[in-house]
Amino acid sequence: MVATRTRLSRVDGEAGRLTIAGYDVGEIAPRVPFEAMAFLLLEDRLPEPAELASFRSAIAEQRALSGATIALLREAARQGAAPIDALRLGVASRVGAPSTPVRLLGALPAIAAAYARLLAGQEPHADPHPELSSSEFFLASLGDASEDPAARAGRARALDTYWNTVADHGLNASTFTARVIASTGSDLGSAIEGALGALKGPLHGGAPGPALDALQALRAKAGDRVGALAQATRAWAEQEIGAGRRLMGFGHRVYKVRDPRAQVLERAAEALLEGTSWLADARAHEAAVLSVLGRLKPGRSIATNVEFYTALLLHGIGLTTAWFTPVFALGRLAGWLAHVREQVDTGRLIRPESRYVGATGRELQASP
Amino acid sequence: MVATRTRLSRVDGEAGRLTIAGYDVGEIAPRVPFEAMAFLLLEDRLPEPAELASFRSAIAEQRALSGATIALLREAARQGAAPIDALRLGVASRVGAPSTPVRLLGALPAIAAAYARLLAGQEPHADPHPELSSSEFFLASLGDASEDPAARAGRARALDTYWNTVADHGLNASTFTARVIASTGSDLGSAIEGALGALKGPLHGGAPGPALDALQALRAKAGDRVGALAQATRAWAEQEIGAGRRLMGFGHRVYKVRDPRAQVLERAAEALLEGTSWLADARAHEAAVLSVLGRLKPGRSIATNVEFYTALLLHGIGLTTAWFTPVFALGRLAGWLAHVREQVDTGRLIRPESRYVGATGRELQASP
Repeated sequence: MVATRTRLSRVDGEAGRLTIAGYDVGEIAPRVPFEAMAFLLLEDRLPEPAELASFRSAIAEQRALSGATIALLREAARQGAAPIDALRLGVASRVGAPSTPVRLLGALPAIAAAYARLLAGQEPHADPHPELSSSEFFLASLGDASEDPAARAGRARALDTYWNTVADHGLNASTFTARVIASTGSDLGSAIEGALGALKGPLHGGAPGPALDALQALRAKAGDRVGALAQATRAWAEQEIGAGRRLMGFGHRVYKVRDPRAQVLERAAEALLEGTSWLADARAHEAAVLSVLGRLKPGRSIATNVEFYTALLLHGIGLTTAWFTPVFALGRLAGWLAHVREQVDTGRLIRPESRYVGATGRELQASP
Repeated sequence: MVATRTRLSRVDGEAGRLTIAGYDVGEIAPRVPFEAMAFLLLEDRLPEPAELASFRSAIAEQRALSGATIALLREAARQGAAPIDALRLGVASRVGAPSTPVRLLGALPAIAAAYARLLAGQEPHADPHPELSSSEFFLASLGDASEDPAARAGRARALDTYWNTVADHGLNASTFTARVIASTGSDLGSAIEGALGALKGPLHGGAPGPALDALQALRAKAGDRVGALAQATRAWAEQEIGAGRRLMGFGHRVYKVRDPRAQVLERAAEALLEGTSWLADARAHEAAVLSVLGRLKPGRSIATNVEFYTALLLHGIGLTTAWFTPVFALGRLAGWLAHVREQVDTGRLIRPESRYVGATGRELQASP
């Protein structure tokens, strides 16, 4: 069912193309800062350099969190809440000024950063560091303060590429949730909170943790012997397919050919992980899985999906799998914000019909 | 577009019928406690008396709120947040045990009650009062402790009838939001939080405040003279229609004839407000509006909608208009919970398509 028109992104599953605001994902994602991507989605054009600088500093100003938000995150950390729930909680706790795109673009990475520090037993950064981009701020909050600035800049570039790549992807379930909520005339914070709730679901997609789990387990098993990983992967893939299970990291319900985002992320991972064995192993693993799939599922074109290289990249950036979904949310936020704006500007109340298949003509015997 | 099948309710706009789990709304709403309605929606049958008693006490046990929830509500009250936002905030702040229908059926009225007391400068009730039903507990938290128990029981009965009447209504925007979120495999709390965000929107419907505002203003203007209210209403209705404005309390996008819920609520208001001038005035007002509509919009069947008698009833129960939407949410919660369960049991990922209408073939000139 076609639920809405959008100028934000087009997913062409047959051709394996993703267009974001007119640009091919491979053209734009590696080449602009994330804040420029968010501006592009909101305004339908890239910012001039001066505009970008002022957009970035407006976002950075929103990194200060209220005492109520920090207190709630502290309690969530004490209870060991998942980072994606902490994000939702943090957005919900903003009871003061109404949400705007700039406020949420600043607050969401700040909530994530504060929660990461609280989970690690550290205090949230009091300084909003206006000189840092969103990715730099988030990574600086996570890492140790003595990290080599060039290394951190490389990680931040990789994170921007990731965020740009996932910034929008048609009418996925979380984006649709945001639009349905916005279509009632509700506020932006409610729409983003609902989207975070939908993104959290394991069927939403974009959760690359399991793709990494398999590769890590096989690497540990194969050790350092040349060819051992490919061999272990083939055996594992045959076993999984034989048992009717899906191979995490391969196949996508939308794309018939290779997911166009996989290539962007593969290149970003390559740039980040140059000189490590991770990339070579990932390639050996991918080739082995695809050869098994080609043999056992000959008629089907099951390609490497975006989760596979996402997992590699996010791991390379230094994130644990618990952070994969919330970090995905920080990128998809740009799309949600633009979809809500588009819905408010051009849309109508989204209220589909249901078909009743229940009982009829029941009569009350006696009041219970 | 038909987005899902459901056994929960059927809205027949042509015939002016609403079927809830097999029962006509007029048959069931005035005759069962709200907890029985929630049980019916969840289990597709009414509870036996012993089942109802244990369901009620399980719900009552969930009224205790955590310190973190109370602290957040206190901060929200300090900032003057709307009660509907406090509900959403309260649900989000539950970072401990995962949500279940029983937990939310207990917690939501408790959050509402606590927030009402905090707004009034009082401390939330520490005692969860297991002997009280949800409506009794909520009203007891709002009112003064010395209220005549018979009067409070009458108000609680009226509130149960209201909650039963609005417990489910096909695939409205908030219910659809809950199903979309649940369809990703996300948790129940996220689905309910999203639904609360959608319900908040002014286009959602079910927000009867404005219907009351007009009647109150006209009553004040007309004073006590016989026939003056009808005369004032006619003049106002002619003016509003002439200006192309919608008359709040009349007309509904779904029902072509009189909304079947209006009759149930009219009778409940009648029982509650017997002997007051409110009911007579409401009737005079309704008759005057309908006569003007019949004269100025002859081809159209614009009937009194559910908001009109909802406003009368909720006002009669003693609620201010700021509480109309959150109290609506407390009733619709039963439907949301049952829809989420139905979605999880029988549904698939809800992921509609969008049609791209944006630019194509843009090329990056220089990295900004």
